[in-house]
Amino acid sequence: MNNADLSAYLSAKRQLVNGALNDILGQTSGSIRIVAAMKHTLMAGGKRLRPTLCIAATEAVDGQIDDVMNAACAIEMIHTYSLIHDDLPAMDDDHLRRGKPTCHVAFDEPTAILAGDALLTLAFEILSSFQVNDQSNAVKWLTVIHTIATAAGHKGMIEGQMRDIHAEGGQSLSLTELEAMHALKTGALIEASITTGAILGGGGGDQIEQLKIYANNIGLAFQVTDDILNVEGDPDIMGKGVGTDHARQKSTYPAVLGIEKSKQFAKKLVNNALQALEYFDNKSDPLRAIAHYVIARRR
Amino acid sequence: MNNADLSAYLSAKRQLVNGALNDILGQTSGSIRIVAAMKHTLMAGGKRLRPTLCIAATEAVDGQIDDVMNAACAIEMIHTYSLIHDDLPAMDDDHLRRGKPTCHVAFDEPTAILAGDALLTLAFEILSSFQVNDQSNAVKWLTVIHTIATAAGHKGMIEGQMRDIHAEGGQSLSLTELEAMHALKTGALIEASITTGAILGGGGGDQIEQLKIYANNIGLAFQVTDDILNVEGDPDIMGKGVGTDHARQKSTYPAVLGIEKSKQFAKKLVNNALQALEYFDNKSDPLRAIAHYVIARRR
Repeated sequence: MNNADLSAYLSAKRQLVNGALNDILGQTSGSIRIVAAMKHTLMAGGKRLRPTLCIAATEAVDGQIDDVMNAACAIEMIHTYSLIHDDLPAMDDDHLRRGKPTCHVAFDEPTAILAGDALLTLAFEILSSFQVNDQSNAVKWLTVIHTIATAAGHKGMIEGQMRDIHAEGGQSLSLTELEAMHALKTGALIEASITTGAILGGGGGDQIEQLKIYANNIGLAFQVTDDILNVEGDPDIMGKGVGTDHARQKSTYPAVLGIEKSKQFAKKLVNNALQALEYFDNKSDPLRAIAHYVIARRR
Repeated sequence: MNNADLSAYLSAKRQLVNGALNDILGQTSGSIRIVAAMKHTLMAGGKRLRPTLCIAATEAVDGQIDDVMNAACAIEMIHTYSLIHDDLPAMDDDHLRRGKPTCHVAFDEPTAILAGDALLTLAFEILSSFQVNDQSNAVKWLTVIHTIATAAGHKGMIEGQMRDIHAEGGQSLSLTELEAMHALKTGALIEASITTGAILGGGGGDQIEQLKIYANNIGLAFQVTDDILNVEGDPDIMGKGVGTDHARQKSTYPAVLGIEKSKQFAKKLVNNALQALEYFDNKSDPLRAIAHYVIARRR
């Protein structure tokens, strides 16, 4: 898959996910204000990396895209809720996200707290909305809900955010601590995105194990690249500020390893991810291309 | 069921729920700080009204208590997350809850935001942790997850909190608006507690419909009584301040109807609830006794 093919693939999946998210939030009957706040960040033009990985994992195990759309949307809602809460004045106090004012800036702080809560809750409403004819699918969906909730919770993403907050401005983290923090903060939900896609696509245990290795490596490569972009990126392309990590004395890969070694490390992780895919046929080409994209992207 | 019997019943169910919640949080492997913050409010001696209603509804339809404990615990976690977030400085800015410092006072604001998020997420982890042998139960659990997520989300509890916040200090609400706000803010999750208990206990469609009527009436009676206690209650017994609604110019039943008419209204609601139970045999005696307790309680 060349760059143009990947670009077309990512764009097609982004449109698919955006359409599905719009359908879900168009159906809602809540007050205009809470739904507007939920949509504000959810529909602000995110990359849709997690839902795309979920779909690509389904394709890799020869499953049907229709069967995973609810999971793909739910995961993007959970990712977005975490951004809204991370941006709050009590947390990172960010004013710009995906090129637009953050939720609490565009609305107000209570509304942003509740919009985050509502997106997290809606994710589980969507994950359980499957109309059950074939009861064996009910078991699959319960497994998916459990996988996602565990990854997003206090043993996963939330614990990662706790460690991130308490590391800022304090003692710098060791490489091991930094890696553990990112494995929790971003890695856990990325792994869940891919695992979920594989489960719903009917993948076998061996396939799921290899995809987890892929997920863990690109998850970390994604974070290392985020750190690099915060040093070297173009704020206009990224839609958010750069240099903010340094200003906050955050522990980052460039801070611990330097820029060049960080780039080498990201490349090594991508190679590990590609190795895990040797187990799969050409239906996993999008996953291969995404692994390259994760470190080549400019936003 | 006389007062002493009800007291013993409530105490037994409270201990059962507290034990189960302790078991769940004892198993967790997250950082000490996030788990401590989650436990701080969760284990601070709440009444456990919602899980008790869930269990009592199961008993009313002749189901097994063991089958609903996960749902009962999950609902209490969701209730507690909503308290933690409602108490935040950006929301009600409360310092005392269940007789202890609120979560953000005991820890800090970011930790309280994340502890709330973590309890909400853990609720869905627990709801989906059912080990499936009998696949028909998987369908029941998906229905329960959907019922709870819908009640707790932006069409239910969260929308109620939005309306409550935006009503404070502004124009006073009409009686209809006040009732709609409470039906969302507290009624939806109370209804879900009872519905969930009935579904998991194997209740039929007619039984569930009657229990919904019961739930809606005692849910509102509970709120009217909360408003009355905020005027007339004893802060030492309640473990939180009184007179706070008036200070905040909140729309309440005493403010709109006066104290005496509010008490009459609460009694009428309890009578409606009792009428809905005529459909059931003496296994619903605890629900009957709880209906009386809802307006007689002093905290």
